[in-house]
Amino acid sequence: MKNTLGTNVAVTVFGESHGKAIGAVIDGLPAGVTVDEAFISHQLDLRRPFGKISTPRQEADEFQIVSGVFNNKTTGTPICIVIPNENTRSKDYNYGIARPGHADFTAYIKYNGFEDYRGGGHFSGRITAGIVSVGAIAIDLLKEKGITLGTHIKKCAGVEDVDFTDYITETDALNKKIFATLDDSKGKEMIKNIEKAAAENNSVGGILETVVMGLPVGVGEPWFDSVESMLSHALFSVPAVKGVEFGCGFECSDMLGSQMNDAFFYDGDTVQTITNNNGGINGGITNGMPVTFRCAIKPTPSISKEQDTINFITNENVKSSTHGRHDPCIVHRARVVVDSVTAIVLCDLLSQKFGTDWLGEK
Amino acid sequence: MKNTLGTNVAVTVFGESHGKAIGAVIDGLPAGVTVDEAFISHQLDLRRPFGKISTPRQEADEFQIVSGVFNNKTTGTPICIVIPNENTRSKDYNYGIARPGHADFTAYIKYNGFEDYRGGGHFSGRITAGIVSVGAIAIDLLKEKGITLGTHIKKCAGVEDVDFTDYITETDALNKKIFATLDDSKGKEMIKNIEKAAAENNSVGGILETVVMGLPVGVGEPWFDSVESMLSHALFSVPAVKGVEFGCGFECSDMLGSQMNDAFFYDGDTVQTITNNNGGINGGITNGMPVTFRCAIKPTPSISKEQDTINFITNENVKSSTHGRHDPCIVHRARVVVDSVTAIVLCDLLSQKFGTDWLGEK
Amino acid sequence: MKNTLGTNVAVTVFGESHGKAIGAVIDGLPAGVTVDEAFISHQLDLRRPFGKISTPRQEADEFQIVSGVFNNKTTGTPICIVIPNENTRSKDYNYGIARPGHADFTAYIKYNGFEDYRGGGHFSGRITAGIVSVGAIAIDLLKEKGITLGTHIKKCAGVEDVDFTDYITETDALNKKIFATLDDSKGKEMIKNIEKAAAENNSVGGILETVVMGLPVGVGEPWFDSVESMLSHALFSVPAVKGVEFGCGFECSDMLGSQMNDAFFYDGDTVQTITNNNGGINGGITNGMPVTFRCAIKPTPSISKEQDTINFITNENVKSSTHGRHDPCIVHRARVVVDSVTAIVLCDLLSQKFGTDWLGEK
Amino acid sequence: MKNTLGTNVAVTVFGESHGKAIGAVIDGLPAGVTVDEAFISHQLDLRRPFGKISTPRQEADEFQIVSGVFNNKTTGTPICIVIPNENTRSKDYNYGIARPGHADFTAYIKYNGFEDYRGGGHFSGRITAGIVSVGAIAIDLLKEKGITLGTHIKKCAGVEDVDFTDYITETDALNKKIFATLDDSKGKEMIKNIEKAAAENNSVGGILETVVMGLPVGVGEPWFDSVESMLSHALFSVPAVKGVEFGCGFECSDMLGSQMNDAFFYDGDTVQTITNNNGGINGGITNGMPVTFRCAIKPTPSISKEQDTINFITNENVKSSTHGRHDPCIVHRARVVVDSVTAIVLCDLLSQKFGTDWLGEK
Repeated sequence: MKNTLGTNVAVTVFGESHGKAIGAVIDGLPAGVTVDEAFISHQLDLRRPFGKISTPRQEADEFQIVSGVFNNKTTGTPICIVIPNENTRSKDYNYGIARPGHADFTAYIKYNGFEDYRGGGHFSGRITAGIVSVGAIAIDLLKEKGITLGTHIKKCAGVEDVDFTDYITETDALNKKIFATLDDSKGKEMIKNIEKAAAENNSVGGILETVVMGLPVGVGEPWFDSVESMLSHALFSVPAVKGVEFGCGFECSDMLGSQMNDAFFYDGDTVQTITNNNGGINGGITNGMPVTFRCAIKPTPSISKEQDTINFITNENVKSSTHGRHDPCIVHRARVVVDSVTAIVLCDLLSQKFGTDWLGEK
Repeated sequence: MKNTLGTNVAVTVFGESHGKAIGAVIDGLPAGVTVDEAFISHQLDLRRPFGKISTPRQEADEFQIVSGVFNNKTTGTPICIVIPNENTRSKDYNYGIARPGHADFTAYIKYNGFEDYRGGGHFSGRITAGIVSVGAIAIDLLKEKGITLGTHIKKCAGVEDVDFTDYITETDALNKKIFATLDDSKGKEMIKNIEKAAAENNSVGGILETVVMGLPVGVGEPWFDSVESMLSHALFSVPAVKGVEFGCGFECSDMLGSQMNDAFFYDGDTVQTITNNNGGINGGITNGMPVTFRCAIKPTPSISKEQDTINFITNENVKSSTHGRHDPCIVHRARVVVDSVTAIVLCDLLSQKFGTDWLGEK
Repeated sequence: MKNTLGTNVAVTVFGESHGKAIGAVIDGLPAGVTVDEAFISHQLDLRRPFGKISTPRQEADEFQIVSGVFNNKTTGTPICIVIPNENTRSKDYNYGIARPGHADFTAYIKYNGFEDYRGGGHFSGRITAGIVSVGAIAIDLLKEKGITLGTHIKKCAGVEDVDFTDYITETDALNKKIFATLDDSKGKEMIKNIEKAAAENNSVGGILETVVMGLPVGVGEPWFDSVESMLSHALFSVPAVKGVEFGCGFECSDMLGSQMNDAFFYDGDTVQTITNNNGGINGGITNGMPVTFRCAIKPTPSISKEQDTINFITNENVKSSTHGRHDPCIVHRARVVVDSVTAIVLCDLLSQKFGTDWLGEK
Repeated sequence: MKNTLGTNVAVTVFGESHGKAIGAVIDGLPAGVTVDEAFISHQLDLRRPFGKISTPRQEADEFQIVSGVFNNKTTGTPICIVIPNENTRSKDYNYGIARPGHADFTAYIKYNGFEDYRGGGHFSGRITAGIVSVGAIAIDLLKEKGITLGTHIKKCAGVEDVDFTDYITETDALNKKIFATLDDSKGKEMIKNIEKAAAENNSVGGILETVVMGLPVGVGEPWFDSVESMLSHALFSVPAVKGVEFGCGFECSDMLGSQMNDAFFYDGDTVQTITNNNGGINGGITNGMPVTFRCAIKPTPSISKEQDTINFITNENVKSSTHGRHDPCIVHRARVVVDSVTAIVLCDLLSQKFGTDWLGEK
């Protein structure tokens, strides 16, 4: 379905970096969810570049809720949010030069040369602003049902953050941070290293780690709609994500069954597991433990360093360096996109389980 | 869509481990694909247990092509393949005991106690035989179009295989191996370690690495139907997969943009890249380079060691050890399942691009 | 999705008239629905030909529930029912002759000559046996929730049945009739006329009228998943259906707004309408009144009369008459197929509204 | 999928009658289709009310193409068109009164009282402006491939138009008419009768008849994606449509097989049929003849006459008459909506057959 994600709750994105506007439509959210425009703004702000470590392009991100909200509540019909493009400098882009790591060449072939190439067009990270705006409503809906999520920068520019320890208390503060590390001193180190890479006309990547708490047992489907399948589908659509792992992830390849298996126990009436190597998912279905996963974010492909590449119009090998605005790191900005698609997917799975009107349930 | 994967080419699985039969329906394959029953058998054999390192349950896997094939060619209508269950020993299973790492508990909650719990029921790895049987036809279809794929055991039981070097020549031999390493001496070491784990009533995991060659440029969609999104969705539905990464994957988090970016160049008329850190995919769309990815396979959860767990019927904390038949390792068996879902997803994406009758094209 | 219908509850059909078997997979039904094999047999019997007015081909329709049922209850996982083909006489069919009104020519073009042409192949009405077998479970599920449906032969071979009058009492008896008229004397007239057409090597059509009672208010979605859209999609997939109308249907084109509008009123606590010209649907959503619709069934295209047509292999204009087994009328047999797809669609819509586990819900 | 229609080509609608804007997103159109804004305006004008026979609400329908178009060509990415709402008079609407024939009551139950009830909210016919705007591009795409369509008012207010006779020449002129009859004198009679009904505070319905020419043989899928299934799904989502029939439709119930069957013949190299009772479709697949169908449009439910109804907030039986702006007839306005959804569905089916880039294909 190309630009649409989901079944019962579905989001459709549209827009190009230098077109009139970008935006998204989310359909299938239950009626009666409180829509908090300040929270949408807050989420969009987290996605926006900041300071020296991000692109100087400054978009106000003044979103317009075009439909689906009435008296500050969702109506149950599609919510379309449009975000106009304002600060566009098209002349920075040189058509025909395939920027390494970007979709210029693949888009050219796929769309037979009709693609809007300006600023990455439909492949621009700017499209994620639409996802973030409607994702904010999904996050709020989950919160109304006691489901919270948070993502920290597990690793960036060679620096590692501390581990999630107390899931419950961390996410509230974490979700307000612009540069979301659990240990702020680690965050400062990361920023220093990002600035260093920027000074060398280079860029860095990192790893985001997410935890979702409060999901009921029994969410997800066997086989193709497993929680892992559904989440990874969405996560790999976030630009720059090149790896996704749940629970202990790739580390499991070095473990014995006796180490990997999460022993169940009753703690009063709740079923829990001692370890959580499976990331809260057994057989594709939530087991009541926190759902945990990590995403690998590649270094921003736009760098000022000169690179070898091709001109796909003239069919020549050329040298190229990107002189437009760009970020030396997008890990911290991708964080809120990861949270947004996660919330959207979970709303879809919860709607499958509890039906259209699940907000009022439980 | 729960047990259905895909849009233009879609596969639906059905069956339980100890029911009458398991199977799959694949719909949307073009008419005229040669169906090679010997190859289907071969693929099913690769999925089946072998020797000391696998479960003693021996299924003949005598599949029946029920529909969609006429005069050894696909007709273009749904192909249903049914594989009867024969060698089932239901008394091995003890209802109420949640085997750690398995879906017993989550299935119980999800299906309100109506699940067929025998042998893991619908969550059994046996269901993958249906996927493999129809996946074999998808693999053959790709081959007719010059697209080949191969998967080796990159790592297992603490031993690493050598890297893919010559993509073209390796896959033919590789695809015939029961224990698919590039370096057979590494394979022998792995097997020895698996046997050691088995002797200690334990199990091991590993990493599978896959390469797809011959895909045209321009396959895949932006955003939610990116090649990574589509493949990861399918790969995470393969039991025991806990991580998926494309190209250099998680390693990208430690790289600089100048290292990560794959420089384009013209080699005669073909566009290629010097490195392939992006795994043949830019902006979610194939760039003509081999598509590469790795899957982390967790150690088999069924182990004979005693483990702590619960009885979810009596609500008690209990000790449990699994005495039924089980594998100390399923990495080598998962290989052909990974190939199968990969082929199915690629047929779906290619059908989106080239239409229903793409077999005859090009 | 070609051979799959539905989202939350989805049915996939497979098979060819003269292949090994036909069948269907239904996925998404809640766990715990009682599966009554006698009722499945009963429904298949209603679909089967009978007496002089139907084809002499006699299939036992011995269905096998391959998966998804355990201890006579649905497990919540896909139910696959396979019905072997037994009594096939392939030599009756002459490849290349496009039988008028059939899909021989269109299938030949669509599938590039690879179609299984024997007995109509995948386009055979026999495929509906699969739909009927899984539809029986959907009908039983609806019944457990107080939702009943019935279809009578409103018109056939020039004879009209009386109108539905007392919705509640009629359907029980009606659903057991082989030739489902409300007034059996009308049914006898119809049969006489069908036999007359058969004697003249000809065939007749008719109109089926369906009523669904007990649906809650608020089922269905605005716009593209309206109850009318969803039902008509399924109904037009029943072979020979050329028209579908809801409520007063085409008659509305001759009415004034004041006649067409159904006035609401409270009858104690229930909301009802005085008339039901809208067929229980306002804005695509159920209003609590019976949902009513009619399907036009064309006369069976297979007739023994000589007809002009083409041989699409030799590209010649030829004369043709069908000497194989065929029905002079399929209206009475289509009835149970209409009921089956109706039940499946309603289960899908109810699952969207109430979630996966709606069986247990009120 | 609620507010989304289609698979390979999909349209999503959003908006409420008195919200900020309404609109639609169409995804999956091939890149390179010329976008003619004048034609979009023309189509929107045809949908807009005119003269005495329509509502006095006058919307400029100034649409904004927000995305997916670059240098007047489609880019292959989602096209979002937004149409602001301007002339809204919310005080005309009285919440709690269920207007007979409208979705006020069903929406109230479905959305738990959170629906935007103003002017019919999301159920307003105004939403069709979004469909028409993106449908115009689909119509243009079909035209580039030699596929044309036209719809005339077959019947309205008791007056019948003449039959389609010469398919090829009629549609060009027809598609420019505001009140689309083949015989303009019949159109004048219809308008006179509509005005008479309006003078009596009443409304009238009618029948639209559509013909599609130039479709290749082999479009459509067996069973659930038959051309009839796909088109009827879309057509029944057009407000006020209560019946859809293909070819001779309901008339087939009175025909003999020998009358109904369309005899094939070769006319030089083309295969044709002498009659076209099956409406260009055999077995759900196009046979190369014009695809023909008719839609029954009910009389506008908004009438000024006093009617019995309920207040669903106070639970009282009340009298009601609609004093807001409304049309005594929408048959002529529905015409262009029917054309639009038809074109969208056909683009979807053609994209399934020919792939993403089918514009360039022969």
